[in-house]
Amino acid sequence: MTAPFSALVEKHRSTIDAATAAWRERTFYAHWPEVPSGKLYGEDAPSEGKRRFDGQLGKPFDRLLQRDAQSWHGEEESPYGFTLGITYPVLSPDVLVANARRAAPSWAALSPAVRAAVLVELLERAAATFFELAHATQHTTGQGFVMAFQASGPHAFDRALEAVVAGLWAQETFAGAATWTKPLGKTSITLTKRYRIRPRGINVTIGCSTFPVWNSLPGMFASLVTGAPTIAKAHPKVVYPLAIVVAALQQGLSDVGLDPHLVQLAVPTPYEPMTQALVGAHGIGTVDYTGSTAFGQELERFCAEHGIVCFTEKSGVNPILIESVESLDAALDNLAFSLCLYSSQMCTAPQNIFIPARGVAERSSGRMIPYRDVVERLVAAIDALVSNEKVGPGTCGAIQNSATLDRIERARQLGLPILRQSTPLQNPEYPQARTATPLLLEGDTRQRAHYEREWFGPIAFVIPVASFEHGLEEVVGSVERCGVLSTLIYTTDESLLRSADDALIAAGAPAAFNFTGPIWINQSAAFSDFHGTAATRAGNASYTDLAFVAGRYSVIGTRIGS
Amino acid sequence: MTAPFSALVEKHRSTIDAATAAWRERTFYAHWPEVPSGKLYGEDAPSEGKRRFDGQLGKPFDRLLQRDAQSWHGEEESPYGFTLGITYPVLSPDVLVANARRAAPSWAALSPAVRAAVLVELLERAAATFFELAHATQHTTGQGFVMAFQASGPHAFDRALEAVVAGLWAQETFAGAATWTKPLGKTSITLTKRYRIRPRGINVTIGCSTFPVWNSLPGMFASLVTGAPTIAKAHPKVVYPLAIVVAALQQGLSDVGLDPHLVQLAVPTPYEPMTQALVGAHGIGTVDYTGSTAFGQELERFCAEHGIVCFTEKSGVNPILIESVESLDAALDNLAFSLCLYSSQMCTAPQNIFIPARGVAERSSGRMIPYRDVVERLVAAIDALVSNEKVGPGTCGAIQNSATLDRIERARQLGLPILRQSTPLQNPEYPQARTATPLLLEGDTRQRAHYEREWFGPIAFVIPVASFEHGLEEVVGSVERCGVLSTLIYTTDESLLRSADDALIAAGAPAAFNFTGPIWINQSAAFSDFHGTAATRAGNASYTDLAFVAGRYSVIGTRIGS
Repeated sequence: MTAPFSALVEKHRSTIDAATAAWRERTFYAHWPEVPSGKLYGEDAPSEGKRRFDGQLGKPFDRLLQRDAQSWHGEEESPYGFTLGITYPVLSPDVLVANARRAAPSWAALSPAVRAAVLVELLERAAATFFELAHATQHTTGQGFVMAFQASGPHAFDRALEAVVAGLWAQETFAGAATWTKPLGKTSITLTKRYRIRPRGINVTIGCSTFPVWNSLPGMFASLVTGAPTIAKAHPKVVYPLAIVVAALQQGLSDVGLDPHLVQLAVPTPYEPMTQALVGAHGIGTVDYTGSTAFGQELERFCAEHGIVCFTEKSGVNPILIESVESLDAALDNLAFSLCLYSSQMCTAPQNIFIPARGVAERSSGRMIPYRDVVERLVAAIDALVSNEKVGPGTCGAIQNSATLDRIERARQLGLPILRQSTPLQNPEYPQARTATPLLLEGDTRQRAHYEREWFGPIAFVIPVASFEHGLEEVVGSVERCGVLSTLIYTTDESLLRSADDALIAAGAPAAFNFTGPIWINQSAAFSDFHGTAATRAGNASYTDLAFVAGRYSVIGTRIGS
Repeated sequence: MTAPFSALVEKHRSTIDAATAAWRERTFYAHWPEVPSGKLYGEDAPSEGKRRFDGQLGKPFDRLLQRDAQSWHGEEESPYGFTLGITYPVLSPDVLVANARRAAPSWAALSPAVRAAVLVELLERAAATFFELAHATQHTTGQGFVMAFQASGPHAFDRALEAVVAGLWAQETFAGAATWTKPLGKTSITLTKRYRIRPRGINVTIGCSTFPVWNSLPGMFASLVTGAPTIAKAHPKVVYPLAIVVAALQQGLSDVGLDPHLVQLAVPTPYEPMTQALVGAHGIGTVDYTGSTAFGQELERFCAEHGIVCFTEKSGVNPILIESVESLDAALDNLAFSLCLYSSQMCTAPQNIFIPARGVAERSSGRMIPYRDVVERLVAAIDALVSNEKVGPGTCGAIQNSATLDRIERARQLGLPILRQSTPLQNPEYPQARTATPLLLEGDTRQRAHYEREWFGPIAFVIPVASFEHGLEEVVGSVERCGVLSTLIYTTDESLLRSADDALIAAGAPAAFNFTGPIWINQSAAFSDFHGTAATRAGNASYTDLAFVAGRYSVIGTRIGS
């Protein structure tokens, strides 16, 4: 270990220890504060971030340290109504892979502990970009500013740190060397043994358009900490956030004396969409993918045939069941926020809301609230949120992809009763923003095909069920048929909670109950909540369990006789 | 935890602690002694084992506790020249899977620590069958008696124990519950969280004909400890050893009050070969496979398409390179034993022996031994071993499958120079035994197709190379093209050793150097040597790393608001 690296190991020891403890104990931990405040990040940080963002618009993004760009390309439009006009250096898949191959051996030769410390250092340095990153995320994904700050900044970086400590923990399971002495009656034989971590190969991470950083960093950092270079392939319309992060990581690598090509950005163009060429290149060992189920399944099959380990987050259909509540308003306020947050452009957003036809029992009032009243109050809660000028536009954000507006139109034409109409939402700051408030339709369990598919965006269904048991059966069936990334059930009955918990987990679904207040089903907390269960059709990855890191490398032994 | 189980946890704590420590430190550990001696296993154990074996011949195997057999079937022939005449209960795939599904929930509900303790108890009880198991293994696989005892008894059981402690270690990474409190400025929000282990589903383990127990127990026990029932599908010609083990495990389960259907035996017949029907059944979560590359690849593809986690040990081509030695005789004696042991019917047996054309440097004599002399002395070492009446027949054993004799014939007809002819080996105890001593051919690196494929059985190639560097290049190329389960290099030059070690591990091969004396490249030691690197075409499983256990279950969280 060279001196600068041992200093980094010392410097970040307490962070790594604390993060490891939180990851194992599943308690609250956040290394980066989630509030976008100059008090926390430096008085100048907010304005400096805005200045960098404004200064980048209309210009080439020239901060990447990756060599041999063949052209420059960019096609980003802000969902808030303007062209970003940024171009990015385009390296061919061959060049990216060759760069990664050159960078690989010296990185693999470092110890896991050194790699972990270097990666924490890189994250700490890259955190200086959080405010520019927030603007970049807002104006590519359509997220509101605060959410964009949190999702691409502290929350994503906490997930990256989580992957680092998970990977370090896994790699430290085994000793690096042993003297093995086998007794043979009165004599014995001794072998000298060494064990080395060998990464599967170069990682390719396929980013998505809605969470370009949050969904990419876990796979990238799990790969890096286990010794592999990573190539992050951006979505063609959402490059800027990932470009900022990759550039900051490359600068950090260069500053600590390592090859910046350990982390590279792949920029797709209309002529080279990148994913297939990268995944099919010689030397690729792991792939991380976030995106559609159809393409994800193709990737999984290709990888299985080519000995590549593939981690996927595809899509699911997330159900809610409301049987009984302490306070209906508290439950519906929470649910309304979840339905509005980033206009439900989240893999974890609820879609299908099952409510017993007889209504919902409210403990605080001792009343049974009829089904129709529950629906009306849910609609009213959504209306109140979206029409609140202070929080509505920021909560809903903008629609990333115009295809989502088409999808709302198709949903309208299903012929189902419309419980709440979707309308554009005026955004005073960005009058040209592409927006849509939640569309709420009424489904029918006899026609599950209507709602047992992912309707990505602000489209949800309320579905009456005969009873809690019937609702749970529908929820569990949906999990088995469609996969799932979140579930949420409201019941004040402990025995119903237990039976639902058992049934959900048996089906492979994460379970949540009785969310009210400032905690939402769409969100998962690094170190405490696993994101994805790896147990349904929604994907085989779980951020960050042991399988997510342990599958990325082999431990290979050397035996030396005498 | 019920009282009997907590007693088992106490009873086996020291075994589990010691095995876990050895597995992590990679030091020597063996829970069951490998010598088939009445002094170690009880004075009557050897004769009792023989009596049970003799008493079983020609009769139905009626010790299994699995219900709803539809027919009885058996087709085993001893490679030593007689018919076993044993029939086994045949349960249809549907019945086996239904039995496993019924047994699953209560097993999954136990804690990992309880499961581990129960499994150690089962192994301890099943170890009482070691001597019968040795005879059963000898007379199905063709292994010599001592090897049969070790491979199906202590060595296999140590691998099972290793899988148990690996699975327990992995599952204990995360707390089972947490109180999660997120600070929110002057207030906070608290969620109650629980985390449960959810096995992927029922395990199907596909056994092989040469190591029916050794290659099956790791996957079976890794699945069991992580909460899943397992169905062990025997090779149609090698049922008896696995039947003994499954019956003993079922009896143990029943005795401790658990459902014996947690472990079941699937017996293939000419009408129902079992594998495809089992793997395709609803509820299968993991598959462990040992066998041919072609069928293994088909299985891997099927599993990827159906969300099943598949662990494979397919086949590789194992190379040896001899550059320099301390003592040539010591090296060649070791190598001759490896080539003869169980007539090379081992996935880890060496096949291609690269020797520099200029010869091998011997340090003890200070001489360069010419290539031709090395070859002659290797042939002489093999001759000496096979013609040694005391150890030859027991070392070579018998040929499990007559197709191996055909393969020897095909190898003879390659047109390559025959360095040593394969002949039958007289076995005084079993004059009808199907035997063959090693065939040694001379290969040529310009015609790699001759030897860059697995020639399963007593078929090896000596291939002259221009230099150590050329030999290493051929070895590494072979690893990349064919996959590998073992490599062995002889060099007394520390810098060559280092460069070979680096190159082998970079290629994904396990490395071994300078084996002499009673330690052979064919063997891997539980707790210390990983079997399989999961990094070459030879398979994606490694006994027993974290990935081998962590991929078998999810940790799924429950979040409860207030």
